Amino acid sequence: MFQFTLHTTDGRARRGTLTTRHGEIQTPCFMPCGTKATVKTVDPEELKQMGCQILLGNTYHLMLRPGGDLIEKMGGLHKWMGWDRPILTDSGGFQVFSLHKIRKIAEDGVEFQSHINGDKIFLTPERAIEIQEQLGADIIMAFDECAPTGVDMTYTKEAMERTHRWVERCLKAKTRTDQALFPIVQGGFFPELRKISAEFMAGLDTPGIAIGGVSVGELREEMHEVVEVVEPLLPKEKPRYVMGVGEPIDLFNLVARGIDMFDCVIPTRLARHGTFWDQYGRHTITNADYRTQENPLQKNCVCTTCQRFSASYIRHLIVENEILGHRLLTIHNLHFLLELMRQIRSAIEEHRFEALRNEFITTFHNGQTGTN
Amino acid sequence: MFQFTLHTTDGRARRGTLTTRHGEIQTPCFMPCGTKATVKTVDPEELKQMGCQILLGNTYHLMLRPGGDLIEKMGGLHKWMGWDRPILTDSGGFQVFSLHKIRKIAEDGVEFQSHINGDKIFLTPERAIEIQEQLGADIIMAFDECAPTGVDMTYTKEAMERTHRWVERCLKAKTRTDQALFPIVQGGFFPELRKISAEFMAGLDTPGIAIGGVSVGELREEMHEVVEVVEPLLPKEKPRYVMGVGEPIDLFNLVARGIDMFDCVIPTRLARHGTFWDQYGRHTITNADYRTQENPLQKNCVCTTCQRFSASYIRHLIVENEILGHRLLTIHNLHFLLELMRQIRSAIEEHRFEALRNEFITTFHNGQTGTN
Repeated sequence: MFQFTLHTTDGRARRGTLTTRHGEIQTPCFMPCGTKATVKTVDPEELKQMGCQILLGNTYHLMLRPGGDLIEKMGGLHKWMGWDRPILTDSGGFQVFSLHKIRKIAEDGVEFQSHINGDKIFLTPERAIEIQEQLGADIIMAFDECAPTGVDMTYTKEAMERTHRWVERCLKAKTRTDQALFPIVQGGFFPELRKISAEFMAGLDTPGIAIGGVSVGELREEMHEVVEVVEPLLPKEKPRYVMGVGEPIDLFNLVARGIDMFDCVIPTRLARHGTFWDQYGRHTITNADYRTQENPLQKNCVCTTCQRFSASYIRHLIVENEILGHRLLTIHNLHFLLELMRQIRSAIEEHRFEALRNEFITTFHNGQTGTN
Repeated sequence: MFQFTLHTTDGRARRGTLTTRHGEIQTPCFMPCGTKATVKTVDPEELKQMGCQILLGNTYHLMLRPGGDLIEKMGGLHKWMGWDRPILTDSGGFQVFSLHKIRKIAEDGVEFQSHINGDKIFLTPERAIEIQEQLGADIIMAFDECAPTGVDMTYTKEAMERTHRWVERCLKAKTRTDQALFPIVQGGFFPELRKISAEFMAGLDTPGIAIGGVSVGELREEMHEVVEVVEPLLPKEKPRYVMGVGEPIDLFNLVARGIDMFDCVIPTRLARHGTFWDQYGRHTITNADYRTQENPLQKNCVCTTCQRFSASYIRHLIVENEILGHRLLTIHNLHFLLELMRQIRSAIEEHRFEALRNEFITTFHNGQTGTN
């Protein structure tokens, strides 16, 4: 049901195919975030039109509302949200640790308060798997403890070791055979811990491996260093997924370091703030220059936004806070990243990835660091 | 360029075709409101999919932002908003009189404050036409004074007489020959004034006539009475447009009284408040009954919302305030009204309009009156 085929490499960049029960995913790939069972503002048809292969859903948000029971009863996440291509769900670990200040971490699991009604909720590795089995994604994630940046090595090591014990409980708790479970390498920004964690996760019988905890803050150099340390320790035959990264430059730099899968809220979030990408970098549509701009957001872009509407019209929609504006920018930004991944895949196949990467990085002005 | 053909009648109900330079409109028709150059949440492709023949744009909103100059420079409203079918623009009169408390009405025109930046703006019949010529709609409206409900007959008569003088200035100010100008019958809820106004407007050389000022408040009976008085005085060969009406029951009752065109924000506004229509009336999607409802919003509905999504999923989106939810309900509500108009047109052609009207009114529970 789940299979990864590595077709070719170009330097350390890898070109592969993931096969799931909902179809194939060509890698390297970017996965748009459908946090609450919808990629904000767009519908499944638009996602298909832009060539989206796989979506990410958030266990944390969906467990709070509407709950795993309901989605299971409705036939699972795919059917419920009208998306028949692959889905990956995260375990909720990242949100529990990043969105909540009030929490109690114990060996058994984590206690936190619902941000919706203040209810006390206890999430364990077993419960995270149970909910993900109810949601029914093709790829599910182990429940991990994502230590915050700035904590010391002792704290980070404890969190990492607990994550190791938890992943074994996740594997044991898993009952569905049609879902692929990925463990998550932790260890903060301490190379020695990352090595231990990578070796531990590599030793497990899982069809893929993720690297977590690198997208926190604005630590681009540290993120690259972590991947440099971890990647050589990962089995070549398994897909590698770096969580929470979606800045174009980072995608290039991590594909160059042997990573196959990415997700990030940045294309959709930027869109809702009136920001879009083109080959030169980020732009703010409310800039007065766009008022009379008859051209599309990006010349030669084939997305359904650029094919139909001028920058002038989209600027007006954003100024007026019209929902269609947010949607049109979301379509463009997601298409931009998905198209970038298509170009990256072709370049790897033709063994010219480094040339493409250099060309892109030279042209693209990255006004921001990290994943914001 | 502009032509109205009356094909057949069934009682007083009329089945016609309006021909414009952007194509034909089958009547009776409902026109969705694209207030700020977008029908809120949906795109032109979706409007075409649901069989939308003509949109309404608002001169008042567009003159304030981005301004008629910009839209003219960008090639006109059709090109700018990516809509190649007919458009009707109102004159701004209704908004000036309904949205503003601080105003000065003089013979020359109306002074009001922009709700955006407080600027003093002076709108005259000539200026309203000038802006509508810049926008470039197929049908444009005369600048009128829409007297509020509750004022006495003297006030209403003065407003009506000014409207009569203003429509003559509008006709004189008009320079484009490819736009049809419709005057607006006023006179409040005073039958004797309505008669005077209807006779005056009927005597003008215009290709169509509108009835304004009937959608204010919750005065369904009064609205019907006004139309009863006015309609017999209107030339049979001209299309008649009742402004601001979109409640399903009202559409039936006014088609039955010989009206051909309607517009209203109600389908889109209800959607944004989580309300949808089916043949039984209005429903609130956040109702707990829909939580596990696997069926679409309306059985046998062929709209792209009902074809793809369950009520359960849409309820979740609305509860989470997800934009896709507002969009899916908007699509359904607009489709519902447009489909109703298709059924009405077929029924008139087949001389069974009264049977359809009775059947609909018996089934449809109208919990609300007026146009809300």
